Amino acid sequence: MKYSVKEAVQILERTPAVMRSLLSGINDEWILNNEGPETFSPFDVLGHLIHGEKTDWVTRAKIILEFGVSKPFTPWDRFAQYEESKGKTTNQLLDEFEAVRKQNIEWLIGAKLSEADLEKTGIHPVLGTVTLRNLLSTWVVHDLTHIAQVTRVMAKQYKTEMGRWPEFFRILNF
Amino acid sequence: MKYSVKEAVQILERTPAVMRSLLSGINDEWILNNEGPETFSPFDVLGHLIHGEKTDWVTRAKIILEFGVSKPFTPWDRFAQYEESKGKTTNQLLDEFEAVRKQNIEWLIGAKLSEADLEKTGIHPVLGTVTLRNLLSTWVVHDLTHIAQVTRVMAKQYKTEMGRWPEFFRILNF
Repeated sequence: MKYSVKEAVQILERTPAVMRSLLSGINDEWILNNEGPETFSPFDVLGHLIHGEKTDWVTRAKIILEFGVSKPFTPWDRFAQYEESKGKTTNQLLDEFEAVRKQNIEWLIGAKLSEADLEKTGIHPVLGTVTLRNLLSTWVVHDLTHIAQVTRVMAKQYKTEMGRWPEFFRILNF
Repeated sequence: MKYSVKEAVQILERTPAVMRSLLSGINDEWILNNEGPETFSPFDVLGHLIHGEKTDWVTRAKIILEFGVSKPFTPWDRFAQYEESKGKTTNQLLDEFEAVRKQNIEWLIGAKLSEADLEKTGIHPVLGTVTLRNLLSTWVVHDLTHIAQVTRVMAKQYKTEMGRWPEFFRILNF
């Protein structure tokens, strides 16, 4: 698929609702367990998504549009949520994610990006030169892969209860 | 986590809503693309989940409770949905999944399974002896891993638009 703002927004606007359907009101055991040391729990993922909305995707898009390659992106702190989510409930994080995402979608639609805009470039601290198209499609993929991660983490909690069945589930060994 | 009907139902009852949040009203390109030959699209996954509700999980649980190891399970046709979903819309499949899942959850809760029931055994055509606990926890994991699959399949559609970013996303090469 080619990137289009219209089809990208279809995912971006759904992710907060998907996370809410999956996580709101569920037992903490499903939400707080992770895949082992230095991995994210579903709760951690919510904080990570919020931090991305506040500091990464739209911030970087604006840098590309305003400064191009003259102002490299600030590296994303992938562990900021350990501090920022402290003391918050899952529902607070779900509400916060929905609110910041809504603002960012409004910006994206309001920016009325042309094909030429999508080819504008910026400097990623690790990847080097990237286009706005690369950044905005990665924003969508980042959502989808974190939904995949959350459900994989939850699935792994029952691995030992499944007897011999895990051999049919390649993803449980990912 | 140890299997419990209460916590299992928390996932089982959410999956139809998660699928609806993710897929209802979205462009067909997100729903009909797959990961390559002989892989499932999100549309295929919905049909597969419905087929599982109709022929697999509860059917097999009843075999364990009524016949034990004297009646092996019928193998699951993993490709039945190619015929059964023909001509149906995504929203029809979402409605159908929600309805059959609801019935099966009612059965699961109504069965009032004891710990002794969960240790009862049946014969899987490939895995051999399995317990009801194994079967019922796999039902939950099957849901979660198919949500992961759907979002991974969708994510892959933008892989070529991401420039060098896919190297940060291990899951895109799964």
